[in-house]
Amino acid sequence: MLTLRSEHRCFSGSLRFYTHESKSCNGPMNFSIFLPSKAQKQQCPALYFLAGLSSSDENFMMKAGALRVAEELGLILVAPDTSPRNRHIERDNEHWTFGEGASFYVNATQSPWSTSYNMYDYIAFELPDFLSKNFLIGKKSLMGHSMGGHGALVIGLRNPDVFLSLSAFAPICAPMRSPWGSYALSLYLGNESSEWESYDTVEILKKTPKTQPILIDQGEADPFLEEQLRLDDLAHVARENNLAIEIRKHAGYDHSYYFVSTFIESHLRFHYKYSI
Amino acid sequence: MLTLRSEHRCFSGSLRFYTHESKSCNGPMNFSIFLPSKAQKQQCPALYFLAGLSSSDENFMMKAGALRVAEELGLILVAPDTSPRNRHIERDNEHWTFGEGASFYVNATQSPWSTSYNMYDYIAFELPDFLSKNFLIGKKSLMGHSMGGHGALVIGLRNPDVFLSLSAFAPICAPMRSPWGSYALSLYLGNESSEWESYDTVEILKKTPKTQPILIDQGEADPFLEEQLRLDDLAHVARENNLAIEIRKHAGYDHSYYFVSTFIESHLRFHYKYSI
Repeated sequence: MLTLRSEHRCFSGSLRFYTHESKSCNGPMNFSIFLPSKAQKQQCPALYFLAGLSSSDENFMMKAGALRVAEELGLILVAPDTSPRNRHIERDNEHWTFGEGASFYVNATQSPWSTSYNMYDYIAFELPDFLSKNFLIGKKSLMGHSMGGHGALVIGLRNPDVFLSLSAFAPICAPMRSPWGSYALSLYLGNESSEWESYDTVEILKKTPKTQPILIDQGEADPFLEEQLRLDDLAHVARENNLAIEIRKHAGYDHSYYFVSTFIESHLRFHYKYSI
Repeated sequence: MLTLRSEHRCFSGSLRFYTHESKSCNGPMNFSIFLPSKAQKQQCPALYFLAGLSSSDENFMMKAGALRVAEELGLILVAPDTSPRNRHIERDNEHWTFGEGASFYVNATQSPWSTSYNMYDYIAFELPDFLSKNFLIGKKSLMGHSMGGHGALVIGLRNPDVFLSLSAFAPICAPMRSPWGSYALSLYLGNESSEWESYDTVEILKKTPKTQPILIDQGEADPFLEEQLRLDDLAHVARENNLAIEIRKHAGYDHSYYFVSTFIESHLRFHYKYSI
């Protein structure tokens, strides 16, 4: 079941907002998809974008300025929602860094979230399978922003056969050591922090001898860089393990979509290179 | 007095959100300005964008995808707010098509709006004068979307010495004959509809033998086209009077910023041509 909520023509392609029933998330899930004109006739590669805290499936499509280049390259863009919604869980709207809009892309093990907050399975397996059955999709790649940058790196690194290249804007690199991350992980996964390691990019990279091509952009005027994002921790492991991760730092840029929009074109071209 | 509310680096330029005291609008007014990197060293042309109903000074900068080309061309972009705000007028938030976010860019003659709803004077004279004193601004041009397309055409046509070229996305062309327009104009200007003619593009064009260069883009799947926008009325006068107005209709496009973003680059290049 695929319910079209709205459709907009944009750059000759078609931007659509859908809802479908998800098994992993035990109910309806929203996503948006941009189909360049080429994708209506033939198979095209798909680039997934995971958004950050308090975003929906709309922010990326509306604010990142990605659709022009996606049409040019013939690249399908997919922006899943950042969590299940309206699951009637009491604490889901208590704080903007947890619950609705803040899934942290894990499979929750703790009640009541374990029933529906299985975004890891949803992004890694269920949604790609579902979309491949409904659209002409070729190779897949994954990117994200902030909490979604964390999701893209974690899900991508653990599933290199699904996502052939990865990128992130200002990702939360070490959620175990970030106040936002440790708060959310303790509620979704319980207090045993060894359970958190498989959702922490820095911990995963410590055990990864070789990765897909990875590109990371980070603004140096990002107020969350030191405490929440901890890019230096990632850069350190990447250097130690000699991993193929390109990290670009940009003076004066902050954490907003104005920063994302500035560098989105190079991310699309980066992923496109590995998708043809 | 110029108060910086926030600043974002974007495409090497600087996007700033300001508040200043306006005489015309009897209190504080918001606007945003994008200064391409070139504008920090030398005079650059400025392109003003007037937004539509229920927008603020943020929508255009966030959603239209204009900043990349503005940086490339060295074009300053200015997005004023769509009305005064917080003037404590009882009916100002009664309906989304009137009051806050819905000034219709007129000088109100009716109490209580006449005190502060003088957006015509603000956009045509006060803001350009103020900005020229605070930034390195050369020639000026004007564009807008929907109600802002109406504002751009009316203000631009009546002030050809101020704005050298005009453009609009899905403008309200004949507010006197549009339900949104006639409702707002009756409250701002009173019930004597002869008072409305100087704010109606179609009426103005009837008396204009020659205009600046004008470009209009319109989506054919725009749900407001027939009843609210009435582009055919404008096209008719333009043809009759042999005016230099280029009208482009686009199959499948709606009224949203997804439509605006698709064609914004050509508007920037259009205005740039006349500004150098």
